[in-house]
Amino acid sequence: MSNPPNETPAGETGPKRGFPAAEFEARLARAQVAMAEAGMDGLLLTTEPEIRYFTGFLTRFWLSPTRPWFLLVPPAGKPVAIVPAIGREYLVATWLDDVRSWNSPQPEDEGVSLLASTMREIFGTKARIGIPEGPETHLRMPLGDFRRLRALLPGIEFTDATGVIKNLRMIKSSAELEKIAHACAIVSDVFEIFPSMLAAGMSEVQIFRRFKITCLERGIDDVDYLVGGAGPGGYSDIISPPSPRRVGAGDILMLDTGAVFDGYFCDFDRNFGFGHVSSDSEKAYAALLDATQVGLQAARPGATCAYVYRAMQRVLDKDFAGGSGVGRMGHGLGMQLTEWPSITPKDETILQPGMVLTLEPSVDLGGGRMMVHEENLVVTADGAVLLTRAAPASLPVITV
Amino acid sequence: MSNPPNETPAGETGPKRGFPAAEFEARLARAQVAMAEAGMDGLLLTTEPEIRYFTGFLTRFWLSPTRPWFLLVPPAGKPVAIVPAIGREYLVATWLDDVRSWNSPQPEDEGVSLLASTMREIFGTKARIGIPEGPETHLRMPLGDFRRLRALLPGIEFTDATGVIKNLRMIKSSAELEKIAHACAIVSDVFEIFPSMLAAGMSEVQIFRRFKITCLERGIDDVDYLVGGAGPGGYSDIISPPSPRRVGAGDILMLDTGAVFDGYFCDFDRNFGFGHVSSDSEKAYAALLDATQVGLQAARPGATCAYVYRAMQRVLDKDFAGGSGVGRMGHGLGMQLTEWPSITPKDETILQPGMVLTLEPSVDLGGGRMMVHEENLVVTADGAVLLTRAAPASLPVITV
Repeated sequence: MSNPPNETPAGETGPKRGFPAAEFEARLARAQVAMAEAGMDGLLLTTEPEIRYFTGFLTRFWLSPTRPWFLLVPPAGKPVAIVPAIGREYLVATWLDDVRSWNSPQPEDEGVSLLASTMREIFGTKARIGIPEGPETHLRMPLGDFRRLRALLPGIEFTDATGVIKNLRMIKSSAELEKIAHACAIVSDVFEIFPSMLAAGMSEVQIFRRFKITCLERGIDDVDYLVGGAGPGGYSDIISPPSPRRVGAGDILMLDTGAVFDGYFCDFDRNFGFGHVSSDSEKAYAALLDATQVGLQAARPGATCAYVYRAMQRVLDKDFAGGSGVGRMGHGLGMQLTEWPSITPKDETILQPGMVLTLEPSVDLGGGRMMVHEENLVVTADGAVLLTRAAPASLPVITV
Repeated sequence: MSNPPNETPAGETGPKRGFPAAEFEARLARAQVAMAEAGMDGLLLTTEPEIRYFTGFLTRFWLSPTRPWFLLVPPAGKPVAIVPAIGREYLVATWLDDVRSWNSPQPEDEGVSLLASTMREIFGTKARIGIPEGPETHLRMPLGDFRRLRALLPGIEFTDATGVIKNLRMIKSSAELEKIAHACAIVSDVFEIFPSMLAAGMSEVQIFRRFKITCLERGIDDVDYLVGGAGPGGYSDIISPPSPRRVGAGDILMLDTGAVFDGYFCDFDRNFGFGHVSSDSEKAYAALLDATQVGLQAARPGATCAYVYRAMQRVLDKDFAGGSGVGRMGHGLGMQLTEWPSITPKDETILQPGMVLTLEPSVDLGGGRMMVHEENLVVTADGAVLLTRAAPASLPVITV
């Protein structure tokens, strides 16, 4: 039995949901090699993507902060889950063999003693255990409980496992790629038909709502991320919720969405003009598309993120030197909206086949306005391949 | 200027979005009194609800794990935000006066030195600073960076601020209550009309999609949480995503949703029978409704969570002694799907006017099946008032 089921639901097209057990076996094997190379006797994982990566445990229940969840990855053999009783049935039905649980909530001992005794049993009293504690990670358990855990395990040395996890998760399997590509394809369709649903006088709140509904109707599971905005000739920030303002002639509207299929994200945006578009906006749009095209050519196996950044920056520097406050021109993508690596001048991560990236150049238009453009790609042995359908060569304009 | 804007968008009915500055002033004043009582010279906050509570910073951008966000609450005066440049514009437009930012991503110093120098400036070299490190909390920054911060601030003693934050956030203002009540009202409508959208032969995936679309059409911003399932006479767990299985005669379907309006959740469920409902299922449903009614009567100011739990458990014990693995019979609700306190036999939190709670009794039906029911309430001086429209007195049955 596998949980979640590895099949296509009734009435749905697209890739199978879930993964076969072989997928998890392959992930575990790669992890155990990397752990051995890093001199680690095991991993302790507490965060949603990491636990899902090794188990398939896909649930929105992570939104509740009440209960911690723990996964131990031993040097050989399957991972061991230590979970609140409410999740026991689900995890027992996954490919795991050893699932331990405690009655929760129980704040006076929220799994800590069970975790400690299981760690002693699996790792012994002296061991070097990796936990992610580097960039883009956090510990999803109360800090006080982690201190108690360490006191219970004086012989356990915790060491940073960020590199191990990052190197695993950056390379997507073909089954993972199918899910991301499917999310990208659905949302590409939505962006293509969306201009027909837009009209001057709609508020951003209404536009956002219409966009989410259209994504769901076409097969997206959740539109977890939708930000953007509209303003005359550009927008002032790219992380705000929709404003109450009505969109009107001269505005540029941008929608940036992280839409999910079976636990995997796409993350890209599109810009739309209303009525008339200034030549400044057209020029910015063209520069962003040019930079993206150059980034796509540059994102070959063996290139670094910094190399891709510099290639894109050279294009923007022609007319838009400076920078926009976004701080990077793309990032990894998969189980999370953003993942390692970052397309920055300092990130020396070497691109490899199977990496999924966004390219996301942005320009400052002055006067507190900016423009941003984003596409998603997968690195293959032959170079980057777009997962999104490329944006129109010129800014789509809504008649007002 | 206030950000997010404190108004009702074009084309929308319901409460104003955002909050007036007075709301944040009142929250801060309460916090500073509690900090003084707890002997704290300040707070360091890193998590979404806590930073939003003091600033109004509402964005889906928290889904990206790349960048940490920091808020310092001084003993007097407004909070100070230390944020990545991408969020600067947004935070400058809130009621805050002091917003500092760094160029991010910059993993070699992801805001740590700026945070440390700001803390020294505000708190001096010797101070006792609260951070949430107790039940239901976590630290949203890399553990390695927190260690570096502590090394930069040898005179700063960090102490647990969970109690301070919990006591603040548990009591909802009238503006917060309006938002939660609005989410509850919309979803109550949806649950009422939803049987007409259900038919045997639909997959759970299809049912979930239809439910989300209907919520959005009626004014919900995001259906962040939707779990549930269907099975003969009951379901096996209550945290799974929708299965590929088609719903059919004899099934009980449960949908449990945390739907959001302007950053505030409702969290309740409804059960539906398909075709015929067994007398066992009817009996369980009646017991759950009885227990909820008793809980509603018990949830008066001055009562404890444990008292409410025991009152409800006595009802269930008549026919359904045992327990279900859920571990509690309700919880707090507001900016998060679940918040402190928990309705458990050990939680001695005293109920006060302004607290918003779920009542969520569940029963084990044997054979790996269970049933759960959930409503939302606010505690007032006169007792509990339902925010949800009470579920039908008998299980709604879909004709198949």
